[in-house]
Amino acid sequence: MSSRYFEDFGPGQVFTSDGGIEVSREEIEIFARQFDPQPFHLSPEGGENSLFGRQVASGWHTAALSMRLKTMCGIDAAGGLIGLTVENMTWPRAVLPGDTLRGEIKILEKRPSKSNPARGLVKYHMTTFNQKDEAVLEMDVLIIVPVRET
Amino acid sequence: MSSRYFEDFGPGQVFTSDGGIEVSREEIEIFARQFDPQPFHLSPEGGENSLFGRQVASGWHTAALSMRLKTMCGIDAAGGLIGLTVENMTWPRAVLPGDTLRGEIKILEKRPSKSNPARGLVKYHMTTFNQKDEAVLEMDVLIIVPVRET
Repeated sequence: MSSRYFEDFGPGQVFTSDGGIEVSREEIEIFARQFDPQPFHLSPEGGENSLFGRQVASGWHTAALSMRLKTMCGIDAAGGLIGLTVENMTWPRAVLPGDTLRGEIKILEKRPSKSNPARGLVKYHMTTFNQKDEAVLEMDVLIIVPVRET
Repeated sequence: MSSRYFEDFGPGQVFTSDGGIEVSREEIEIFARQFDPQPFHLSPEGGENSLFGRQVASGWHTAALSMRLKTMCGIDAAGGLIGLTVENMTWPRAVLPGDTLRGEIKILEKRPSKSNPARGLVKYHMTTFNQKDEAVLEMDVLIIVPVRET
């Protein structure tokens, strides 16, 4: 599969991650110590005494893992996936230690760039699911994609 | 400083990170290998051959570092900072190896929760700046904050 250009994208296309990513408690704690050191991410005990009632992954860890899943979805946009804006990112459910995540990307719309005819903008919706097919992250992302050279 | 409850927040309040975080090339590459393995994040050479023209940090690395900066802003919301939704996250400028980042949070608005009188919703705008005071990330975030027990 060669790289996809602006012309190759269209509303309704769906890309899914072939495999999944399992998230260990250790990884949740390493990410939390580095980026989001709150008690409910750092340890099971901290989780029990929180709104969540148990240890959960940082939502930003879920977001970073979603990027990893995105690269497993085979979109292969020419020049890489370069995000401009994320709209309405939500975490409908927390990621728990031991969860296995998978990703699904649906192309929503596209439009040529107003400022640069060599590029276009593609908007997609990404959902990250856990092993029970429950959504743990939803977001709309606007990316830049090059137009095929003619 | 004790924890802040819903009643303690109001539009116009500003919180800033005391210090900054320097981002090394090695950290950029470690994050990229783990979460966003695209050539322009993984090596200087990959960056030179990309739209960016040089190696840049993953936008999700910038987001994760912004969370770290957020914890340095002294908001101290009771029960921790629990995000519900991120609206319009943008990366006006890429983070480069060696940049030092700082964060600024401005409270935009708040409202009581409709479903749970023990909680409220607070919306803030966060800007992450580099050492030249250029914005590298902007986002609006909606968080849950407990109401003070009376």
